[in-house]
Amino acid sequence: MQGLMMDDYPLTISAFVKRAELLFRDREVVSRRPDGSIVRTTLGPLLARSRRLAVALRSLGLQRGDRVATLAWNHEDHLVVYYGVPCSGLVTHTLNLRLHPDDLAYIATHASDRAIVVDEVLLPLLEKFRERTPIEHVIVMRTSDAPLPAYALDFEALLASAEPDGTEYPELDERAAAGMCYTSGTTGRPKGVVYSHRSNVLHAMTECMPNAIGLGERDTVLAVVPMFHANAWGLAFASALMGSKQVMPGPHLDAASLLELIRQERVTVIAGVPTIMLGLLAALDANPTAWDTSSLRLILIGGAAVPESLIRAFSTRYGVEILQGWGMTETSPLASVGSVPPSMDAATADEKFRYRAMQGRALPFVDIRARSEEGTLIAWDGVGMGELEVRGPWVVSSYFDSPDGAQQFTNDGWFRTGDIVSIHADGCIQIRDRSKDVIKSGGEWISSVALENALMGHPAVAEATVIAVPEPRWSERPLAVVVLRSGHSTTHAELVAFLEPQFPKWWMPDATEFVDAIPKTSAGKFLKSALRERFDRRLLDG
Amino acid sequence: MQGLMMDDYPLTISAFVKRAELLFRDREVVSRRPDGSIVRTTLGPLLARSRRLAVALRSLGLQRGDRVATLAWNHEDHLVVYYGVPCSGLVTHTLNLRLHPDDLAYIATHASDRAIVVDEVLLPLLEKFRERTPIEHVIVMRTSDAPLPAYALDFEALLASAEPDGTEYPELDERAAAGMCYTSGTTGRPKGVVYSHRSNVLHAMTECMPNAIGLGERDTVLAVVPMFHANAWGLAFASALMGSKQVMPGPHLDAASLLELIRQERVTVIAGVPTIMLGLLAALDANPTAWDTSSLRLILIGGAAVPESLIRAFSTRYGVEILQGWGMTETSPLASVGSVPPSMDAATADEKFRYRAMQGRALPFVDIRARSEEGTLIAWDGVGMGELEVRGPWVVSSYFDSPDGAQQFTNDGWFRTGDIVSIHADGCIQIRDRSKDVIKSGGEWISSVALENALMGHPAVAEATVIAVPEPRWSERPLAVVVLRSGHSTTHAELVAFLEPQFPKWWMPDATEFVDAIPKTSAGKFLKSALRERFDRRLLDG
Repeated sequence: MQGLMMDDYPLTISAFVKRAELLFRDREVVSRRPDGSIVRTTLGPLLARSRRLAVALRSLGLQRGDRVATLAWNHEDHLVVYYGVPCSGLVTHTLNLRLHPDDLAYIATHASDRAIVVDEVLLPLLEKFRERTPIEHVIVMRTSDAPLPAYALDFEALLASAEPDGTEYPELDERAAAGMCYTSGTTGRPKGVVYSHRSNVLHAMTECMPNAIGLGERDTVLAVVPMFHANAWGLAFASALMGSKQVMPGPHLDAASLLELIRQERVTVIAGVPTIMLGLLAALDANPTAWDTSSLRLILIGGAAVPESLIRAFSTRYGVEILQGWGMTETSPLASVGSVPPSMDAATADEKFRYRAMQGRALPFVDIRARSEEGTLIAWDGVGMGELEVRGPWVVSSYFDSPDGAQQFTNDGWFRTGDIVSIHADGCIQIRDRSKDVIKSGGEWISSVALENALMGHPAVAEATVIAVPEPRWSERPLAVVVLRSGHSTTHAELVAFLEPQFPKWWMPDATEFVDAIPKTSAGKFLKSALRERFDRRLLDG
Repeated sequence: MQGLMMDDYPLTISAFVKRAELLFRDREVVSRRPDGSIVRTTLGPLLARSRRLAVALRSLGLQRGDRVATLAWNHEDHLVVYYGVPCSGLVTHTLNLRLHPDDLAYIATHASDRAIVVDEVLLPLLEKFRERTPIEHVIVMRTSDAPLPAYALDFEALLASAEPDGTEYPELDERAAAGMCYTSGTTGRPKGVVYSHRSNVLHAMTECMPNAIGLGERDTVLAVVPMFHANAWGLAFASALMGSKQVMPGPHLDAASLLELIRQERVTVIAGVPTIMLGLLAALDANPTAWDTSSLRLILIGGAAVPESLIRAFSTRYGVEILQGWGMTETSPLASVGSVPPSMDAATADEKFRYRAMQGRALPFVDIRARSEEGTLIAWDGVGMGELEVRGPWVVSSYFDSPDGAQQFTNDGWFRTGDIVSIHADGCIQIRDRSKDVIKSGGEWISSVALENALMGHPAVAEATVIAVPEPRWSERPLAVVVLRSGHSTTHAELVAFLEPQFPKWWMPDATEFVDAIPKTSAGKFLKSALRERFDRRLLDG
């Protein structure tokens, strides 16, 4: 027996965008331009531009399912594309402006991008790979009066020429593609994730729930996470769904620029990777009275494990709670959040900080399990370690045109995350490591992440990472790589003494390398592969 | 181009119930028994009983899609059925214990109910119609040691006999039927609404959002709305989805019993019809220091228009906000909520109260429009009136086996609500009347609801309704029917003087009838049809 409800009503981005056109016309969108100036608009005119864009792209000959790339910072016109492209049945393909031009050429070609909407300030990057791609139409979002290249169209002129003809956005299948994003895996070619309307909608709905971000129409969201990283964690969609005000930093991700936006726009929720928030904290600590973060109620952090010291610092020194989210491009991205359950209401502040430094419980409709290398299920006891596997409506089912991507999926249809985790009795996920970073010492696993998070709590340490390096007796041993805070000093012995009370003795790093900087990926994560190459023989050569 | 996400992951009740089994085992469920005593359990053991029930029903021979009726008050074992039946692929059919036995016989037969789970205290009601139905299995939730009828099974013994065999709940299609509920329309036979898993899930998700109830795992929900009314507004599902504590009143819906539960269990959200909340207010006003409502953050009211005076009284006298929800059995039920938008932050308290007395803005994915009798769209200007039509994933698409139900749907697939509304520029719905209750005077419409809500703001009035009665010159004219507060008196002339500043002169009731009580439907709504019959000739005979 089937239900007799309107189960054919499709869950599409256009459904909530059209509602936003009706209900949230006056909600502000505030962006910072490349020259540092602020531009203000509201959702009403912004979404009218999205409709014009839909008409314009149709007039260029683009058809249902065609890919429209973006190469842009976070700003209001990128949002125009974000809403207009999927609503018109096309597919937004966000290109990561931090990738090498060779990778961008590969990705734009592999995705068969037919058009690209690009920031004028990023034209020099586009020039480096455009001719190696099938891109036919280059549409430039200008911020100066400099002449355009001959091959390029002016975004503003294009919109002006595209009179909306009164036709509605098309009816779409909720399973139709809405967006694409390539993951920059450390091995193999980048792989494409193709989001559906349904997956975007369900992800945005869930992330708005009170046990997650709890996003409402009185929130002001500052998405520092780039719009080319898994749809800026879905925040542009969630904001249009709930009617939240949006604040966009443009290319200015320095702490002062962000703190100014927070103060000026009364931001309530800021979202970004740990390094961004470490920068904010340092700027606040350097001059606590210079800024005003009293409007902030939540700092959403994802993309890398959040040091407990960071959570503690924001909470105790600035009264702001950090919510850790875990996920990947392949999980849209939010799959779990580290909100503290009521069962811990009586716990000490320390216990709560420790809890919040973990990756939290899976969101509704995200199923999780962890399995050993032999494939046996790991008990939810907080001790056993295994690779996290997930399943759910906003989890990737296969990569785009990628035969070798199949190895990321189990035979029974779960996605293998590559994260080594423990799962606690209440369902809380604790990432112990990336499967490629876990240190295999004498047949046992050492969590590099646990060690580096602990090291970053040492007062002399600005940044720290721990890598596996070959060692004859134990096969692999941990090596710490540390950047000191300016004006501070420490030694390997001191750091080991600092770590010893927190971990088994055999987890202690065999050595510490002090460096000026740790190389990072385009997503701001530590680039451990580069360090491993550099320090490969550190324990062998002595 | 299709998305490449796990779009086949079904949105089912079992998905979040299984998550609750893992994450929310310790969440309390507190119920009041018929004898007034309190019983406490938690979701862990409760959901284990749901699994046993699934095994037991299978062993009775029930198969996928079969209907299992309930005839029960709100309590923890009704929840066991609520979760266990749909998760095992069967269909919960909640019977309204306030209906006439003839109607219950018709409904249980029309739905082909194969089993019924019934409160022992409701067995006398069941006896009055059981033999006229196809019900094969009667399962009694006992609260005494009295012997059972020969045809009946003991719920507890049935569960005890059903050892879970380790088999999982079955994989279900998200469009499979999960529940049924008949609407007691005032014309024609009751009509069945068949909820799907998908519609229940999406409704529960949306109702939890911050712009709606904002339900989280630190909430304690007291659902006074019966579980046989549109799934108790989805609150049992929403609570399991979010991990909220649930408090159930059993058959004790008097103000003192409810206030005791609020005080004792620290209830944060209470949900029910206006008459229930009017009762609470009267009890609080009679003895303001006797109770403690400080834990309450929200009173969700639906089922009938909420008098502005009630919203104002709870807010100003007890610091509790009322959220008005609008919906019908056919809309799962929540379709709109009267939360005040940020654009009104600068408005006066009076303006906000007036706003909250309206039916609010449609939830995401609920499309609304209003059309005149001629079918033309009514502008969103807050003035024009038309019949509200809705569309969305949790709106009925057709009634169960009901050819004459087709008239409730438009040719282009919208559901006709029968409510006469205005829609304001910001999307706020204002119900002017039921289409059958609107007073058609001289070719113009008078809103009976507006008049009766205003009358209920008069200090001498306990309850008031306004009905259309035939009148030779204007075709219909309004007649007020009023119940006085004990110890108060007033006159028709005084009431008209009270109304005159608020409405056009031609809206004034021609007469007022003072009565001891206003007859009500089983849902607690004024039974205007009975009044119309009684006062049909009031203005003709003079």
